[in-house]
Amino acid sequence: MALPNAFYAQSGGVTAVINASACGVIETARKHADRIGKVYAGRNGIIGALTEELIDTSRESAEAIAALRSTPSGAFGSCRYKLKSLDANRREYERLIAVFAAHGIRYFFYNGGGDSADTCFKVSQLSKAMGYELQAIHVPKTIDNDLPITDCCPGFGSVAKYVAVSVLEASFDVRSMARTSTKVFVMEVMGRHAGWIAAAGGLVAAQGIPVVILFPEIVFDQAAFLARVDALVKEHGYCSVVISEGCHHADGTFLAEQGSRDAFGHAQLGGAAPVVANMIKEALGHKFHWAVADYLQRAARHVASATDVKQAYALGRKAVQLALAGHNAVMPTIDRISDVPYKYRIGVAPLSKVANTEKFMPRDFISADGFGITPRCQRYLSPLIQGEDYPAYRDGLPAYVTLKNRAVKPKLPAFEIQ
Amino acid sequence: MALPNAFYAQSGGVTAVINASACGVIETARKHADRIGKVYAGRNGIIGALTEELIDTSRESAEAIAALRSTPSGAFGSCRYKLKSLDANRREYERLIAVFAAHGIRYFFYNGGGDSADTCFKVSQLSKAMGYELQAIHVPKTIDNDLPITDCCPGFGSVAKYVAVSVLEASFDVRSMARTSTKVFVMEVMGRHAGWIAAAGGLVAAQGIPVVILFPEIVFDQAAFLARVDALVKEHGYCSVVISEGCHHADGTFLAEQGSRDAFGHAQLGGAAPVVANMIKEALGHKFHWAVADYLQRAARHVASATDVKQAYALGRKAVQLALAGHNAVMPTIDRISDVPYKYRIGVAPLSKVANTEKFMPRDFISADGFGITPRCQRYLSPLIQGEDYPAYRDGLPAYVTLKNRAVKPKLPAFEIQ
Repeated sequence: MALPNAFYAQSGGVTAVINASACGVIETARKHADRIGKVYAGRNGIIGALTEELIDTSRESAEAIAALRSTPSGAFGSCRYKLKSLDANRREYERLIAVFAAHGIRYFFYNGGGDSADTCFKVSQLSKAMGYELQAIHVPKTIDNDLPITDCCPGFGSVAKYVAVSVLEASFDVRSMARTSTKVFVMEVMGRHAGWIAAAGGLVAAQGIPVVILFPEIVFDQAAFLARVDALVKEHGYCSVVISEGCHHADGTFLAEQGSRDAFGHAQLGGAAPVVANMIKEALGHKFHWAVADYLQRAARHVASATDVKQAYALGRKAVQLALAGHNAVMPTIDRISDVPYKYRIGVAPLSKVANTEKFMPRDFISADGFGITPRCQRYLSPLIQGEDYPAYRDGLPAYVTLKNRAVKPKLPAFEIQ
Repeated sequence: MALPNAFYAQSGGVTAVINASACGVIETARKHADRIGKVYAGRNGIIGALTEELIDTSRESAEAIAALRSTPSGAFGSCRYKLKSLDANRREYERLIAVFAAHGIRYFFYNGGGDSADTCFKVSQLSKAMGYELQAIHVPKTIDNDLPITDCCPGFGSVAKYVAVSVLEASFDVRSMARTSTKVFVMEVMGRHAGWIAAAGGLVAAQGIPVVILFPEIVFDQAAFLARVDALVKEHGYCSVVISEGCHHADGTFLAEQGSRDAFGHAQLGGAAPVVANMIKEALGHKFHWAVADYLQRAARHVASATDVKQAYALGRKAVQLALAGHNAVMPTIDRISDVPYKYRIGVAPLSKVANTEKFMPRDFISADGFGITPRCQRYLSPLIQGEDYPAYRDGLPAYVTLKNRAVKPKLPAFEIQ
């Protein structure tokens, strides 16, 4: 009898370390070749399962799979595609099961954020209802760090390190120029609803850098903000501002919206940095510079956190181990044991408790005035950016891998995504 | 008789490696303690000489000075302040000489770009005319890479590496997302007149990344640009665009101006990326992401080019050696001997030939269609980004040094800058 195969897919916005989780899944599956057949990957995420565009990862060399550990982005392609509820689109769930059945897939590893955890949970429910034996394991991934239960999410530690390093470097720059030129540097970072990424910018305060953080959790108060910037520039001669893309006014409108929305219905944001930079110029007269890091922050494998890379790999490995141990509808988690020294263990959480819950910054992680992080937040964040895990370089550039991504021959009729 | 002292100042926009040049100057001067007394640094650049705000670098430990080699920004402060012509403001030049005379300064090391080379040259002329014995040596520094004679400028190799690495990483990201989401990534980089920094983005084409470069040297042609993006997205499913802040229309107007001008009268730019991103969305319908790297690119010591760091240090060291050998009104240069293997020697150029000349991208470094770099350009750029020179890290962040910057007691009456 043929061994059961596995299906792995990447979902949503990619990160600097989601491929490290893929590496953990595939290498661990290969180590259990007596119990797992092939690992198929979805070309462009779950869409590849619906359209039966499967990638045969067994065609990749051990070296290529190992190189995933230090390659950012989604090596098999990802997608922003949310399966609707079972009632609204049962057809898609049934198609997934049909594709899994056609290719002998009994393990489903879904690597994504909150929406994907929800999909993963629904697939496990439906397969059970349909009598199709399947183990669905969610591998957490999100730079937003907003999944519940797990102490942190792979992808976050690296973007946090990128943001902290970038704000530190740019702050040194503006400090150099402040006497006659730029006095305020504004950096916009990702984070629609949760301010974890912006919070990482606050880590530079420990080095004496005057920094103002604008969180999505705190309603923007223009007068208080300008007063804070004014006070810092008067005291230090300069300051840096880190603004979350999700920073918004009391009525809920974002400081900057581009007007378009993505497939999940989320507003596509960008451009809050120039808005507050000009606000400062107008009110206080300071020359400014601003940056919008956008994809650079989540793709910055060159300055990844070693802690993050290690955890991303470990959770991919654990997902396979959980599947082999008979688990279903679960997600491996990071359970923190202590801050200093940083200790954690890998735990496991039922998907029923993960799906559709966002974890925001606790109020006591944000300073009383709303513009900084507390020591408690610093103790939480600091371990997550520890350690450097540099990629190999060739000709001055990182030697990132591009896989062959050989297609598996389809067995079913074509399926149209509606 | 007291030994002659030296004065060192940083000028204009700072870089990831200008402190490496400072390190080269100070360490080399310390090695010649039999011939050079103290090295004074200008607090906030040349302004510190005018206001007699001198920093006594002899108060810094050998460890602190050594740490400058891996610390970005200007450790003594820089300024955007251009001395006017001798006729227009002889008073300032005479004040400089007076401060130098009061503090026994006979060596003037000025670390900057084209404007500073001009100032350095004028100071050497005036001191000669006034009968004040002074050796003025310019240490080249500019991320814009636009100084003549020298093959490249310290600061450029590191920003080039940052841009190439960032475009590579973001391109991997958009490639992952292109099936259902973002198809075009636009990154705006510095470079008002010369497209050297934007050109560095073209280095990723060698790895098969579809990339369009918009140079300030090429008048923006909207129809041709959109056709190129369209063709690349049709062929590859996605593409990246690197746009120089100096990209402009036929009538000379920049794609985006913030309206304000700096002390040198240069327009303060920013925001060209969202302009072309929205242009693409409107014409071709593609979802986009855009980033403006701004200070992040020139401060990114964490991903500096080892070649650049080495050259920055070597030119600082050479400046002192030239001074000790009796040179005046000169600038040490990088003279390239061969591309592969990369070989160069340190040369010397008279400042009369350096001042007020900008070096643009040669037309044969830009592809015929104006949207890419040629193999010749690639051979030029590639050696400049070679090698990694990582800073030490502490608690997950680079351990950059902040000097004590102890003031030298003023000896002259106050001077008001007009």
